[in-house]
Amino acid sequence: MEKVLVLLTFLGSVIALLFALLTAKKVLKFEEGTPLMQKISASIREGANAYLKRQYTIVAIFFACMFVVLCIMAATGLLTWFVPFAFVTGGFFSGLSGFIGMRIATKANCRTANACRSSLNRGLRVAFSAGSVMGFTVVGLGLLDISIWFTLLKFVFKLDPSAITSAMLTFGMGASSMALFARVGGGIYTKAADVGADLVGKVEAGIPEDDPRNPAVIADNVGDNVGDVAGMGADLYESYVGSIISASALGVAAFGGELKAMALPMIMAALGILASIIGTFFVRTGESTDQRTLLSALRRGTNLSALIIAIAAFFLVRGVLGTEYTGIYFAILAGLVAGVLIGASTEYFTSDTYKPTQGLADTALTGSATIMIGGLGLGMLSTILPIVIVAVCILVAYYVSGGAASTSMGLYGIALAAVGMLATLGITLATDAYGPVADNAGGIAEMAGLEPEVRERTDALDSLGNTTAATGKGFAIGSAALTALALIASYIEKVQEVGAAVTFNDFSVMTPVVLVGLFIGACLPFVFAALTMQSVGRAAQSVVVEVRRQFKEIVGLMDGKADADYARCVDLCTKASLHEMILPTVVGIVTPIVVGMILGYKGVVGMLAGATVSGFLLAIFMANSGGAWDNAKKYIESGVHGGKGSDAHKAAVVGDTVGDPFKDTSGPAINILIKLLSMVSIVFAALVVNFSIIK
Amino acid sequence: MEKVLVLLTFLGSVIALLFALLTAKKVLKFEEGTPLMQKISASIREGANAYLKRQYTIVAIFFACMFVVLCIMAATGLLTWFVPFAFVTGGFFSGLSGFIGMRIATKANCRTANACRSSLNRGLRVAFSAGSVMGFTVVGLGLLDISIWFTLLKFVFKLDPSAITSAMLTFGMGASSMALFARVGGGIYTKAADVGADLVGKVEAGIPEDDPRNPAVIADNVGDNVGDVAGMGADLYESYVGSIISASALGVAAFGGELKAMALPMIMAALGILASIIGTFFVRTGESTDQRTLLSALRRGTNLSALIIAIAAFFLVRGVLGTEYTGIYFAILAGLVAGVLIGASTEYFTSDTYKPTQGLADTALTGSATIMIGGLGLGMLSTILPIVIVAVCILVAYYVSGGAASTSMGLYGIALAAVGMLATLGITLATDAYGPVADNAGGIAEMAGLEPEVRERTDALDSLGNTTAATGKGFAIGSAALTALALIASYIEKVQEVGAAVTFNDFSVMTPVVLVGLFIGACLPFVFAALTMQSVGRAAQSVVVEVRRQFKEIVGLMDGKADADYARCVDLCTKASLHEMILPTVVGIVTPIVVGMILGYKGVVGMLAGATVSGFLLAIFMANSGGAWDNAKKYIESGVHGGKGSDAHKAAVVGDTVGDPFKDTSGPAINILIKLLSMVSIVFAALVVNFSIIK
Repeated sequence: MEKVLVLLTFLGSVIALLFALLTAKKVLKFEEGTPLMQKISASIREGANAYLKRQYTIVAIFFACMFVVLCIMAATGLLTWFVPFAFVTGGFFSGLSGFIGMRIATKANCRTANACRSSLNRGLRVAFSAGSVMGFTVVGLGLLDISIWFTLLKFVFKLDPSAITSAMLTFGMGASSMALFARVGGGIYTKAADVGADLVGKVEAGIPEDDPRNPAVIADNVGDNVGDVAGMGADLYESYVGSIISASALGVAAFGGELKAMALPMIMAALGILASIIGTFFVRTGESTDQRTLLSALRRGTNLSALIIAIAAFFLVRGVLGTEYTGIYFAILAGLVAGVLIGASTEYFTSDTYKPTQGLADTALTGSATIMIGGLGLGMLSTILPIVIVAVCILVAYYVSGGAASTSMGLYGIALAAVGMLATLGITLATDAYGPVADNAGGIAEMAGLEPEVRERTDALDSLGNTTAATGKGFAIGSAALTALALIASYIEKVQEVGAAVTFNDFSVMTPVVLVGLFIGACLPFVFAALTMQSVGRAAQSVVVEVRRQFKEIVGLMDGKADADYARCVDLCTKASLHEMILPTVVGIVTPIVVGMILGYKGVVGMLAGATVSGFLLAIFMANSGGAWDNAKKYIESGVHGGKGSDAHKAAVVGDTVGDPFKDTSGPAINILIKLLSMVSIVFAALVVNFSIIK
Repeated sequence: MEKVLVLLTFLGSVIALLFALLTAKKVLKFEEGTPLMQKISASIREGANAYLKRQYTIVAIFFACMFVVLCIMAATGLLTWFVPFAFVTGGFFSGLSGFIGMRIATKANCRTANACRSSLNRGLRVAFSAGSVMGFTVVGLGLLDISIWFTLLKFVFKLDPSAITSAMLTFGMGASSMALFARVGGGIYTKAADVGADLVGKVEAGIPEDDPRNPAVIADNVGDNVGDVAGMGADLYESYVGSIISASALGVAAFGGELKAMALPMIMAALGILASIIGTFFVRTGESTDQRTLLSALRRGTNLSALIIAIAAFFLVRGVLGTEYTGIYFAILAGLVAGVLIGASTEYFTSDTYKPTQGLADTALTGSATIMIGGLGLGMLSTILPIVIVAVCILVAYYVSGGAASTSMGLYGIALAAVGMLATLGITLATDAYGPVADNAGGIAEMAGLEPEVRERTDALDSLGNTTAATGKGFAIGSAALTALALIASYIEKVQEVGAAVTFNDFSVMTPVVLVGLFIGACLPFVFAALTMQSVGRAAQSVVVEVRRQFKEIVGLMDGKADADYARCVDLCTKASLHEMILPTVVGIVTPIVVGMILGYKGVVGMLAGATVSGFLLAIFMANSGGAWDNAKKYIESGVHGGKGSDAHKAAVVGDTVGDPFKDTSGPAINILIKLLSMVSIVFAALVVNFSIIK
């Protein structure tokens, strides 16, 4: 039985990777287009590769240091010897997911542009296929890493289930660390380039987006790849793996060490891969650039996958756990539904087909100050629905799983809700990751001077990408909150394991260390958001200065008679973002250790709860403010309130520029942060329990 | 013994009120200045009175409804019959504090302007005296209300201590409700007028601040009075009373019903009044408009008062409680020190003599988008220090008071820390409330066309007012957090009293209802901030439209040949702000009841903790972002980066405009909100414990 379960998981991961490989081959068969297009694409690819190479070098140094620290701790008996190695593999696979996704994205951009020359559907197929490669690589590698470690620990080292999940949680820490670096570094890169390009190019020089005269234009397109592709890949690898292993860990506790509860989340994931693959075959469209038609083309695929999972999970739960545990199925279903609803709420607040964003566009009429106030207010207000959805999901998942009788069972239910939410990640990520490919394709079409209808088609695809990105963010944020809660529960179990006599009921908010932990934890996402925003600000300012310099010093640039020095901007962004990514990430890793050593493990639980709650709010606030500003600008560009070039449009550009780091740097990074804090706490639990100042 | 203690409290309140009366007479003896100045002052006074009259009418309707609801609950045995009456008196005195403060402020504005014609010191004396009237009215009325109720309940109705504090907590709810209306309504008024006047007058028409040609100029000056004076008065009345009664309530529990622990906070307050009065005699300055000299003039007074309290409290605690409770003195001291430190941190992040704000001014060079990003980042980052200060204060106050042995004792210590922080409110509020008077004086000087050196002097006073306001905000936010915690503890005691078998240790963050409560509670300040910001935005937009209309339709307005229709703008602001103040306040009152009825009392505790933590963060973030934007603009106006009229200045004006609702509407109102939530929960505790869906 055990071996069958493991085999199923292995099979799932192999199928995903094979599917990704076949899809990649399919993408590469498409034509690259004109020599100029190839040249532009090559420049983008080069810049992106150069960035990733340097990023991975820095990250490798960090991982080497952590490896040594973990080895020392293992030598002193505070950790098992599996931990340092698990940590490294988690980081490796997370980075690899991002790398592969980016490789294919940077090859698909010109192919998408070229395909759009013949038809919209063709363009969609290429871009979506590139996104699929990314989606299935992430889930495939995630499940592979889990299967390998599980096999190793179970059948080679013959550990008991709780020791297995304990070691596996550490590769979660590796994945989270890597993801944070990738998200923060990539996020700073992409937004520094974007803001820099927009502020000087669009606002000061008055040239269109992606105009080849803009010296930051290549950097801007590189940014889409290193931030929105490589960064997002590493990020979602972490989310996916984190949700599965935290559920497995809680399953062990809930079922008194029985393997089946531990295996359920893994098999759910494998099942999700099959459902996602089936879904991809239903994504196709006609020639209408109407957003609703396009959206329904993508939705057909994701909805079908979700439906398959919703039905199959019922039988899976009863088959694996037994019919007396049917309640747990409803926990998974609650997660699946909650993910969809949060996505819908995000769409409502950020799409220009609904009132909030249209109202935001109105505030642009009285200038940039009022659109700022409006957007910030909109983002803050938009936290209500997701909070209520998650609250209901937590209560449902907890009680249907039997939480009233056993807290462990209830927490297992919450963890499974997160797994349910992410089960169809293969296809949801595909619909999400295709966006930046289309965006890049548009850039190439513009720079290569292709026919206007090509740009129209890529714009239609890109615009759709904004909507799917909003939905994707809903899943990412929702699953982050649930997974973080599951990880807090895992932390408490870990604390028990290393010798503290404590139960889930011993963390009252009126205990001063828990309370103080809550305050400190809630502060962390604010600090983290501040650091990353300021990084973007600083990096963007340096780009602005450089772009202004080139416009001034390169004779004939504005007339198209001389070439801009793209490489300098690319290099500048690379250096600035790598330099800026270090502090926020280190803060995320060091804080839980410091807090733990001072306040003890109860303080840590308070901190984790505080960070989860405030991080969830801040992530939604920032994502939705940013999304709404972006779309309010697009709405005005569509001709409302005077259209492009009007005063309202200028005000909206300011809003969009502020929204950029909100939605693409700080917001998404907070999701990773709240899980990383728990992972680090788990790994350092023994240290804290034994040596903290306050016990 | 008991009667002596009550007598001391009475005495303190009477002395404060007498001092306020004498100071008011002194202010009124000063000359009002030229007929034009008198006319302008009268217009402002009229507008402010008209606003307050209409505001109080609306609030009276609300109080009448609540009174009926509370009477029904009393009739069904869910409350005692004291509650409805206590509720009304709390609201009445809170409103009265604001009203008296505003009366004197609107009479002192022209007198301050006139005094500034002869000397800076004379101007400071008038403005500061007006502030003192407000400060001592607030503390005097606060202590009077407490003394009267205490006497009534203790000596007339002969209730036992726990029943006394229980009834007294209800007038806290009355005070908080009134304060929230006043803060939100006044805050929307002042910022709608300010933003409206600035956006059209300064930015579009290019005329200076307070120019009589601007149709919104009177409304702007009215706003200073109804928002920054009447609103702040009601607000701090609530803070003051809230901290005292919550400490008294916890004292009863900690000392098993002994009266002395209950009386200590009241006598501390009386002592603080004496110390504050002594301090006021040391506030005087020379003729230098240098900010440091002026600041040290004010600081001399506040520091002396704080020092007196720091010494006297030592003997007070030992005298009232006994020498074995000396530890509690250190809790009070911790509060006092924490208040000063949070103020210093606020000053560091918002004053243009320090790096953060100077750096923010630099970001204006690349436009309004970068100064927005910079200011938001600065505000978020500035949460660290206050969080650490409050965390340390909580731990110190808890443990020195004997929290390790008895949770009740520790919580009493935390409540006393808040009392310590607010003990010198009489004088700190005076230094705070004088700001809007000086601001108004400047407006009158400008409109009446007085000599430039008068405006220079009022500007120096006004600018200093910004710094003292920042310090005042530190005290308000810090005390709000500590008082809110004390109120949560009071809530739990109340829940025990009405029959739930529960201890302080039964609210683990891993209990799903507590956890869900945390999420919902943490969301409330975000929603509240959003609602108030959007209200300001909407109201400001209507002012913008009206001002634009007048500039267009009134012939000769720009040449000074025709008068603007000031009354219309005043009326518009009044209507808009009264209309907009209702929803946010009702949300604050209804939510805890709804959450309680669904999630039960454990959910309520989670909600209160979540709201306190996230509200504290959001209040600091918004206050400091707003303060820094304001001062970055002033810094640029002082000549840096091109000074007034430069592109950097325009960008900074956008920042300041966004910062206005941040720092003067949403931020301060959150302080009240987090306490109101607890107060409402306490009053409705019996209902929730008996009838909630989840028990």
